[in-house]
Amino acid sequence: MKKTDVALCIDIGGTNLRYGLVSEKGNCIHFNKTAIEKQDKTESGVIHKILVILSSLQKECNAKIKGLGIAIPGFIDFEKEIVTSSPNFPEWKNFSVKKILEEKICLPVVIENDANAFAIGESWKGVGKGFKNFIGITLGTGVGGGVILNGQIWHGIDGSAGEIGHITLYPDGLQCNCGNRGCLEMYASAQAVAREGIDLLKEKGLKATDRDIALEIFKLANRGNREAIKIFNIIGYYLGVAISDIANILNIDGVVIGGGLSNAWEFIYPAIQKEISYRTNPVSRKGLKILKSKLGDSAAILGMARVVF
Amino acid sequence: MKKTDVALCIDIGGTNLRYGLVSEKGNCIHFNKTAIEKQDKTESGVIHKILVILSSLQKECNAKIKGLGIAIPGFIDFEKEIVTSSPNFPEWKNFSVKKILEEKICLPVVIENDANAFAIGESWKGVGKGFKNFIGITLGTGVGGGVILNGQIWHGIDGSAGEIGHITLYPDGLQCNCGNRGCLEMYASAQAVAREGIDLLKEKGLKATDRDIALEIFKLANRGNREAIKIFNIIGYYLGVAISDIANILNIDGVVIGGGLSNAWEFIYPAIQKEISYRTNPVSRKGLKILKSKLGDSAAILGMARVVF
Repeated sequence: MKKTDVALCIDIGGTNLRYGLVSEKGNCIHFNKTAIEKQDKTESGVIHKILVILSSLQKECNAKIKGLGIAIPGFIDFEKEIVTSSPNFPEWKNFSVKKILEEKICLPVVIENDANAFAIGESWKGVGKGFKNFIGITLGTGVGGGVILNGQIWHGIDGSAGEIGHITLYPDGLQCNCGNRGCLEMYASAQAVAREGIDLLKEKGLKATDRDIALEIFKLANRGNREAIKIFNIIGYYLGVAISDIANILNIDGVVIGGGLSNAWEFIYPAIQKEISYRTNPVSRKGLKILKSKLGDSAAILGMARVVF
Repeated sequence: MKKTDVALCIDIGGTNLRYGLVSEKGNCIHFNKTAIEKQDKTESGVIHKILVILSSLQKECNAKIKGLGIAIPGFIDFEKEIVTSSPNFPEWKNFSVKKILEEKICLPVVIENDANAFAIGESWKGVGKGFKNFIGITLGTGVGGGVILNGQIWHGIDGSAGEIGHITLYPDGLQCNCGNRGCLEMYASAQAVAREGIDLLKEKGLKATDRDIALEIFKLANRGNREAIKIFNIIGYYLGVAISDIANILNIDGVVIGGGLSNAWEFIYPAIQKEISYRTNPVSRKGLKILKSKLGDSAAILGMARVVF
């Protein structure tokens, strides 16, 4: 029997590395994740980790791997095909992950920014399918974005388009990790939920990540805690402001929101819509739909498969 | 001798109507302007005014008018080819200016938003020529914008792209004419200069437009008045914030700024650059140039000629 052709797609996150085998039609025939430890964070560490995954999948799976697609949490120079830098992986500097892997494995390797991969996945197999021009937004510890124009990912002139987490919400606002002030990322991320909600938790001294704290506050909101709900409402408010900016500039037809925080949809969505109704003109909002991603963790994996094939 | 083929291009503003005859190569062989009175502001009033101009030019000029291009200060439905609304011309409602004129004059008529026409003109014959992806910004009583992507004007799905004057600078900021709060237009326009600077003028009760007041404050700045200079510096600061937002979203290579306020370039430009250096990442700003328009009043006229031919 002929083996199915698949792409091995890898989504490198700050805490986990997700990977999957995806067929040309977009069926995810294998999906898994593995923790990223400190030693995996260097250039050689991540190369090693990818090679181990590839090797084990080649043994286990009854499919022919045609290429590798890697979703990168950082800036890519698409001309030189290198990762210039990554906020979560500070040791990466002009990391030629594609070239290094191709020399070792004799398979074509493609790289793409992870939020762009999310948008491409949504455009191909998710709720973004119906949109011609839309923004994919990933709400996690940070805020990522990918811009789809005329059905294609928009890289901009140097590959850095879609940095919507750094839209300024308040010119003199909170200090962002990027060095700037008042970025959306400081107001509409798990960081923001954790910062605003930590006092609602009993064990205030708990040693937890922003993500863990945000999850606890989400649980509180789900149990009807009004202050917790309000925190998510305000996240929606800020997202609504930034989405309105994008709609005013580009007159897009859609926004697809994914990432952990999108699970709080019922608390954030009404506030997003309310701001859009205030902050855009009737023409710019009449064709604009805001949807929650339904692909979950596999959106970027699917997006990378699209790039591979 | 064969007459030159020209386009008659008309730029309808709130106070003046500018018009010019432009050859296929982009030479402006005639340029003039005429005040817009109250009676010219209705649909039939503006049609009448255009017909009078056309008729007089057809008699006077030794050129063959091949088509009309009209730069519209409002929203256009490009599918239906009508002007849906215009803030400066509240009587226009689904104004089919193109169809009405074509029936009367047997010439093809094209319409385009005025800020888009500015960007197209800059892209064709101005300092925007060197850019592939840029934003044209017109700084007048309001703030207009036109988005050029891959050398083409970007209309968005319903023709309203480029509304950069309504990017939110402060979510709870000043009330804008659009109904929203905190729009760029309230902070980086002649309105803003007049509001912030009126106290610097001796005759405070003077019955003048925002434009006239802004011009007086500009004169003060040119004479070295520090408070007047500061007003323009702050305009640059706000523009820098909004331009950074656009650069973060689209990773463009240029911004071309025109309109009356761009004459205060020496006071606004350094502040724009300073904010961009704070508010964008090194990749997004490395290829980004901010330039002052050199086409002056004729940018939109030239842009319309480009659309006609």
